[in-house]
Amino acid sequence: MVLLERKNRDRAHGFCPGECNTGGGIGMNTMVIGIAGGTGSGKTTVTNKLKEIFGEDVSVLHHDSYYKRHDELDFEEREKLNYDHPDSFDTSLMVQDLRSLKAGKTVHCPVYDYAIHNRTDRTEEVRPTRVIIVEGILIYTDEELCNEMDIKIFVDTDADVRILRRIVRDVKERGRTLESVVEQYLSTVKPMHEQYVEPSKRRADIILPEGGHNLVAMDMLTQRIKNHLAEN
Amino acid sequence: MVLLERKNRDRAHGFCPGECNTGGGIGMNTMVIGIAGGTGSGKTTVTNKLKEIFGEDVSVLHHDSYYKRHDELDFEEREKLNYDHPDSFDTSLMVQDLRSLKAGKTVHCPVYDYAIHNRTDRTEEVRPTRVIIVEGILIYTDEELCNEMDIKIFVDTDADVRILRRIVRDVKERGRTLESVVEQYLSTVKPMHEQYVEPSKRRADIILPEGGHNLVAMDMLTQRIKNHLAEN
Repeated sequence: MVLLERKNRDRAHGFCPGECNTGGGIGMNTMVIGIAGGTGSGKTTVTNKLKEIFGEDVSVLHHDSYYKRHDELDFEEREKLNYDHPDSFDTSLMVQDLRSLKAGKTVHCPVYDYAIHNRTDRTEEVRPTRVIIVEGILIYTDEELCNEMDIKIFVDTDADVRILRRIVRDVKERGRTLESVVEQYLSTVKPMHEQYVEPSKRRADIILPEGGHNLVAMDMLTQRIKNHLAEN
Repeated sequence: MVLLERKNRDRAHGFCPGECNTGGGIGMNTMVIGIAGGTGSGKTTVTNKLKEIFGEDVSVLHHDSYYKRHDELDFEEREKLNYDHPDSFDTSLMVQDLRSLKAGKTVHCPVYDYAIHNRTDRTEEVRPTRVIIVEGILIYTDEELCNEMDIKIFVDTDADVRILRRIVRDVKERGRTLESVVEQYLSTVKPMHEQYVEPSKRRADIILPEGGHNLVAMDMLTQRIKNHLAEN
């Protein structure tokens, strides 16, 4: 993984202050920013803040939208699947959509429904923009997806803070029981985090402690995007 | 420490893409960038690359220059001191010099001689610039020093890679024996790293894996500095 990381770095856009021509879009000069981090790390806050600031100049692909379709299983079987494992995602479809966006094409990304634990028949239109954010817990576990990114950010937050946020979100906002959150966390979320998410941090170019509330880091990232938009 | 970190973040320059007016210099608008990280992490490479790019626009204060004077001890006694502990530095003098630079004044920072393990009578002139880098292993252990910084970067590299670099540097370049490097590493460098350096990472705004060879992160940092210089 370290070797891979170095390879990615070597092929990344060079050390070119100012006149940097980031990204490799065919249709337009696109910069792809990965935002990863464990559950409750704050990556959604980072993503939302960037969307707030840059609006239509930035499009977002969520890895969660690409959960695999499981029509062959009934609800109870789908409920038991491990959704924290890299194999639960159709990442090659996401890579394909990302490449289409970089080539200047509009894509229709899948819409996942958590209530039925399955992909719906609906799609969401995502238009090509000069900056694309790819967001998800496990995005750095896939080499092909990593190779499409110009900047790989990992939002790093202590595990205790992350589980507290998840409990508040799932219990207060999604009406789940505390027991079910604890059970899922200990049986799949935590082991998958340690096996896949934490090691994938090695592929990150920049690690942001505390995510969207880290004003200094957000400012630097924002300026980087502004420069890209001004130059392209 | 987390509370302190939050306080520092709150008082840091706000979330202000583009028109951000960083830093609080009296004489000029100065941006202070801290670059910390363990021995062999690559922080000197980061610092040197920034100096190469920005030349006279950037001045550097090295924490190592501020090792305390120990005229009261003889050479053998000075040799036995723990140079990896925060108390071995005259950090308040460094804070004073940094504040003078921010106020637009030229300072004369101390020159330390490793051969005699003591401060010399010479000084080095450092002129005020719009960007000041503060570099050192232990700079984030001091609250007052942290409060003077606008961006706190921690260069993060695996401990095995760091000790290999230190061995190469000390044995090949400084003519020390392998045994003495190993002995010093295990007796003071490693314990002090774990006690002070690693926890001080919590104060960082941005963590850079691999330091100066991380082209994507270097590019982002470089653009941030360029923007500051263009706006001030």
